Amino acid sequence: MKLATLRNGTRDGELAIVSRDLAKAVRTTETIAGLGTLQQLLDGWDTYFLAAERISSELDAVTANGNGSRLPLFDFDPRLAMAPLPRAYQWADGSAYINHVELARKARGAEMPASFHTDPLMYQGCSDVFIGAMEPVPVADEAWGIDLEGELAVIVTDTPMGVSPDEALDHVRLITLVNDISLRNLIPNEIAKGFGFFHGKPASSFAPVAVTPDELGPAWRDGKVHLPLLASINGKLIGRPNAGLDMTFTFADLIVHAAKTRRLGAGTIIGSGTVSNKLDGGPGKPIDEGGAGYTCLAEVRMVETLLSGAPRTPFLKFGDRMHLEMRDARGASIFGAIDQVVVRYEGAI
Amino acid sequence: MKLATLRNGTRDGELAIVSRDLAKAVRTTETIAGLGTLQQLLDGWDTYFLAAERISSELDAVTANGNGSRLPLFDFDPRLAMAPLPRAYQWADGSAYINHVELARKARGAEMPASFHTDPLMYQGCSDVFIGAMEPVPVADEAWGIDLEGELAVIVTDTPMGVSPDEALDHVRLITLVNDISLRNLIPNEIAKGFGFFHGKPASSFAPVAVTPDELGPAWRDGKVHLPLLASINGKLIGRPNAGLDMTFTFADLIVHAAKTRRLGAGTIIGSGTVSNKLDGGPGKPIDEGGAGYTCLAEVRMVETLLSGAPRTPFLKFGDRMHLEMRDARGASIFGAIDQVVVRYEGAI
Repeated sequence: MKLATLRNGTRDGELAIVSRDLAKAVRTTETIAGLGTLQQLLDGWDTYFLAAERISSELDAVTANGNGSRLPLFDFDPRLAMAPLPRAYQWADGSAYINHVELARKARGAEMPASFHTDPLMYQGCSDVFIGAMEPVPVADEAWGIDLEGELAVIVTDTPMGVSPDEALDHVRLITLVNDISLRNLIPNEIAKGFGFFHGKPASSFAPVAVTPDELGPAWRDGKVHLPLLASINGKLIGRPNAGLDMTFTFADLIVHAAKTRRLGAGTIIGSGTVSNKLDGGPGKPIDEGGAGYTCLAEVRMVETLLSGAPRTPFLKFGDRMHLEMRDARGASIFGAIDQVVVRYEGAI
Repeated sequence: MKLATLRNGTRDGELAIVSRDLAKAVRTTETIAGLGTLQQLLDGWDTYFLAAERISSELDAVTANGNGSRLPLFDFDPRLAMAPLPRAYQWADGSAYINHVELARKARGAEMPASFHTDPLMYQGCSDVFIGAMEPVPVADEAWGIDLEGELAVIVTDTPMGVSPDEALDHVRLITLVNDISLRNLIPNEIAKGFGFFHGKPASSFAPVAVTPDELGPAWRDGKVHLPLLASINGKLIGRPNAGLDMTFTFADLIVHAAKTRRLGAGTIIGSGTVSNKLDGGPGKPIDEGGAGYTCLAEVRMVETLLSGAPRTPFLKFGDRMHLEMRDARGASIFGAIDQVVVRYEGAI
């Protein structure tokens, strides 16, 4: 089942079930009594799931086989998609691809603590206002070092404190893509203060749809998504790392970590951190050289620093377009694309 | 106006308007069409505020003057109170009383960076599951170093990115008390990792009611609450610092800081950090010696370390009771009391 949240003038939007090929959709308000938003579905999964799954199957039969249907379906337009959860009660973002962390440390000449291979890094992100897949990303100052970060995320149902690694994945309800926008030049000062990220991690953006794990077929196994994540800037591919490779901590590990001292409420989003491959024992090679490339500019710059002493690639400028997408073995987009432009924020300042 | 959320079997509870003396309450579901939860009120403040305020006034007239009323009122029982927002979209906790930070640094022999006096510390806390004022606090392991932290918090309406200091306080809708439970022995490792708190800051607890700023009268001025916060453990008062003193960063400063790189959604909770007074140019004295004492055990232990080389007071044990309350000039409880026991978590582990 694929799910989207469509803009309707409310803060939480309206839930839509989307066909596997992302062509058609059906509003749940018109088909399932009492179900209007994705948070409601997550809060009452057992109540609504079968009805939603039935509509999803019928929708796929219509689009795939041309079956007739009395469903009130319409063309799915990702430009109308809000984040699947336009606001959420928790967004806990891990850093599971430790090649990313290792590169960052190497580039500034710092040691990588051994514990980083066994103890996941995770921070609490802001979840009160998420950005839709094709909405602009407002930033007040280019000098803040604007960067994208291509990530996968799972959305879980209620998860008990101390959940075991064996049971953690049973709580995964949905999987989606995230653009964890980062303001790189604000981060060193925040890290130095000891309280972690705050200004450096403004609102994140999400793919147009979130999908149940079965939609990924065999690509979802061992708590990882075994497919390349495609990242482009202004139409030029900069990365295609396979999210199933070099993921030191699986989503099971990340959920266990998040739930160590507290339970997790339904609708909690757990992120993987920037997808990053470490090829041939060295840093990931650029796409141009046949490598997997990168899903954030920070890594491009770290590798440049390691190779030539200084970064050459600038961070994003106003007007730059970011594109993140994941395709299945046949080339079909799974989550739809995050495709958005950085814009100058002209507001309250 | 005073507001509480009562347990009714749902995740968000039901909103109640509570009389100033905390004796009586009225459910909004029975009195205001379309208003069932506090988040709904915050989402649609302009729509609902006047109707709610009218009921609040009538309720106060009944309880204060014995006026007759046709309101469907009932006795307010704080044991039925969930956190005013049982789950929220954002909980950003500052550290505005830098005496607390200074003590922590001194106790471990570290320098206090000069920037800490001008650049607030703030972390993103988990907000998916909050604990009610009289609910037990489940912790899996006493060895984690269980501590209370007495704080004030404001709940804001939509606040634009880059809001100015002059306008920040206009966005404050409600004020309440927080017990920011901390697991002290898990924190040093988390700080060292650079991503900030995660395991060390499990679910926080909130007072039974949140109040509009006018309920505080002249005690709410300059973005501070000028009243003592009373903290007790097992019935023994350990602190009564005045929240209006030694607050280096006002709530205006904290809101401005939170909104620097992003807007804040309605219902965002901004915390003050542990209330802490610095008397006579030195660390706060214990209550026994006529001082203002402390609202967390970490400070008790820091002062013990400074005076005698090592802490004497242990952290909380299972069965220990924490009590946080704020009283007005006449001794009446403003927010009701946070009064809760630490219990051993017997769940999933």
